[in-house]
Amino acid sequence: MSTKSTQIRLAARPVGEPQDSDFEFVTTELPALGDGQVLLRTVYLSLDPYMRGRMSAAKSYAKPVEVGDVMVGATVCEVVESRSPKRGVGDLVLAYTGWQTYAVAEAHHTRRLDPGAAPISTALGVLGMPGFTAYAGLLEIGRPQPGETVVVAAASGPVGSAVGQIAKVKGARAVGIAGGAEKCRALLEEFGFDAAVDHRSATFRDDLEAATPDGVDVYFENVGGPVSAAVVRRLNKFARVPVCGLVANYNATEAPPGPDRLPGFLGAILTLSLTVRGFIQDEFVPTRHDDFLREMAGWLRDGSVRYREDIVEGLEQTPDAFRGLLVGRNFGKLLVRVGEDLTRE
Amino acid sequence: MSTKSTQIRLAARPVGEPQDSDFEFVTTELPALGDGQVLLRTVYLSLDPYMRGRMSAAKSYAKPVEVGDVMVGATVCEVVESRSPKRGVGDLVLAYTGWQTYAVAEAHHTRRLDPGAAPISTALGVLGMPGFTAYAGLLEIGRPQPGETVVVAAASGPVGSAVGQIAKVKGARAVGIAGGAEKCRALLEEFGFDAAVDHRSATFRDDLEAATPDGVDVYFENVGGPVSAAVVRRLNKFARVPVCGLVANYNATEAPPGPDRLPGFLGAILTLSLTVRGFIQDEFVPTRHDDFLREMAGWLRDGSVRYREDIVEGLEQTPDAFRGLLVGRNFGKLLVRVGEDLTRE
Repeated sequence: MSTKSTQIRLAARPVGEPQDSDFEFVTTELPALGDGQVLLRTVYLSLDPYMRGRMSAAKSYAKPVEVGDVMVGATVCEVVESRSPKRGVGDLVLAYTGWQTYAVAEAHHTRRLDPGAAPISTALGVLGMPGFTAYAGLLEIGRPQPGETVVVAAASGPVGSAVGQIAKVKGARAVGIAGGAEKCRALLEEFGFDAAVDHRSATFRDDLEAATPDGVDVYFENVGGPVSAAVVRRLNKFARVPVCGLVANYNATEAPPGPDRLPGFLGAILTLSLTVRGFIQDEFVPTRHDDFLREMAGWLRDGSVRYREDIVEGLEQTPDAFRGLLVGRNFGKLLVRVGEDLTRE
Repeated sequence: MSTKSTQIRLAARPVGEPQDSDFEFVTTELPALGDGQVLLRTVYLSLDPYMRGRMSAAKSYAKPVEVGDVMVGATVCEVVESRSPKRGVGDLVLAYTGWQTYAVAEAHHTRRLDPGAAPISTALGVLGMPGFTAYAGLLEIGRPQPGETVVVAAASGPVGSAVGQIAKVKGARAVGIAGGAEKCRALLEEFGFDAAVDHRSATFRDDLEAATPDGVDVYFENVGGPVSAAVVRRLNKFARVPVCGLVANYNATEAPPGPDRLPGFLGAILTLSLTVRGFIQDEFVPTRHDDFLREMAGWLRDGSVRYREDIVEGLEQTPDAFRGLLVGRNFGKLLVRVGEDLTRE
């Protein structure tokens, strides 16, 4: 029995914003399963900003996707055939099978999900990599103390909304930055931030100042660009800046024009005794991932942490949805429903 | 009995490099001693890069010197009159009396020195603030592991030479950057660095690469500017960058022209999971200063750490010597001998 998979492959390395012509849709026959392998039907595909980096040849923390290869990405899949005793047909698993409808994977590269414990899509969001990025970066690097002020941008996204809510659990004041009135309202009403600031407003800098009367002790940096520059001006002595993303820069094709702000930034690091620390969540998996799953599940149960998903329908929407992600068009964790989610019926 | 002091006061805030006209020499009558006070004769005045910051009105980690006030600075002094039971005439003390020949100070603001334990001038250098800056920044933030590579610039200066030698004590490879062949030779022959790189050489970048075949794990940042940019390109994943000074920028009057290197620097922080941490040594005084005095004294005794002083004669030389400090003209810890050092006769 043969299975066909529709795949989105990288056709060319994007220059600036990814174009439709940078991707190629291909329908291909998958190979027969080997021992220990499973055939997976993709239910949800996660879209995340880091994928822009994988499309580029530049040296980064992970190997780039080669031109001609299927685009990578985390997925929630259903096992439809198995040659492993570890996974049975019908199992729902977290996998890393990328932008395609079906895939062959090693069973030991998948993690079984319990659909009774939480909606399976959360394994890509609040209980997955974005949630753990927020948890590890905030608690291991940001270390907010009760009464301190935590600022996060892209605050209605899956990382930012978790950062703000975990900050509240720890007794800190949470200030979120987002684009537009609707997202800002959600920060206050859905996610319980103490203040929300719209970076698209003409009064953004003044609004940010008003929202941080005691300055900023932790700035969770996941956007870069002008928003970041505005927050840096509000940092207090000994502030901590976990850096987990710079989405504002990901489409940049060259160093922007001057003036050169690097000496000023280093000067702030010096005079304010700042800690600026880049991280990828992998680093903390061995020491903190079990804590994360246990604590986050508890916070979801008791309502301390809430989440929001933005689900687009059909693999063919993926390139356009990804472009939207880079400019903040989505609202909540961005997922593509590639195939039917039988647990939601 | 009245005492006259010759003082150097800040006459104007320097724009760029400090000019003679930014300083004013004044001879003034000191007030009579109050209870608990001592009259001090300045023996050595320490000149340090941070003083450039105090001459400016810009917000920094310490209050600026006001125009008309005596320039600040650490000194080693002899007590010539005392109205405190804590200090006797003839005592040698560490004080903070600035650019002048005599001063009145509170006895409890001074620390008594033991001329038998170490030359009194070292209280301003290897056993003083510069030595402690090296010790605390390297060990608390840099945390070099055996076999790792530590790079420091201004490496023949009092902070840099201590950084390299403490790195060696901890089993790391020490690479020093200095200006000119003579200083580079001293790094290898006097201070025991594993490699020395001349930043004035036309082949600086290639030389730095050759001197760091395994990349750089700790970059002790005390200069900024192009030297810093070259080292940042050599940083390894998880490298640590304690930032204690940016002397290359101190005379800058505006943000330099572009391109804007800040996005690239933040990108390196992210992709390499760097830790960049500014600090002022004060922060670590409560927890580490006693350890420092004990350990550093031991390293001086057993020859693990050596130091070099560059002593200019006479208070009138101070402005010119300070200008030289900002461009690396001195060689070793820069001191002004303001008055006779009776312990050296």
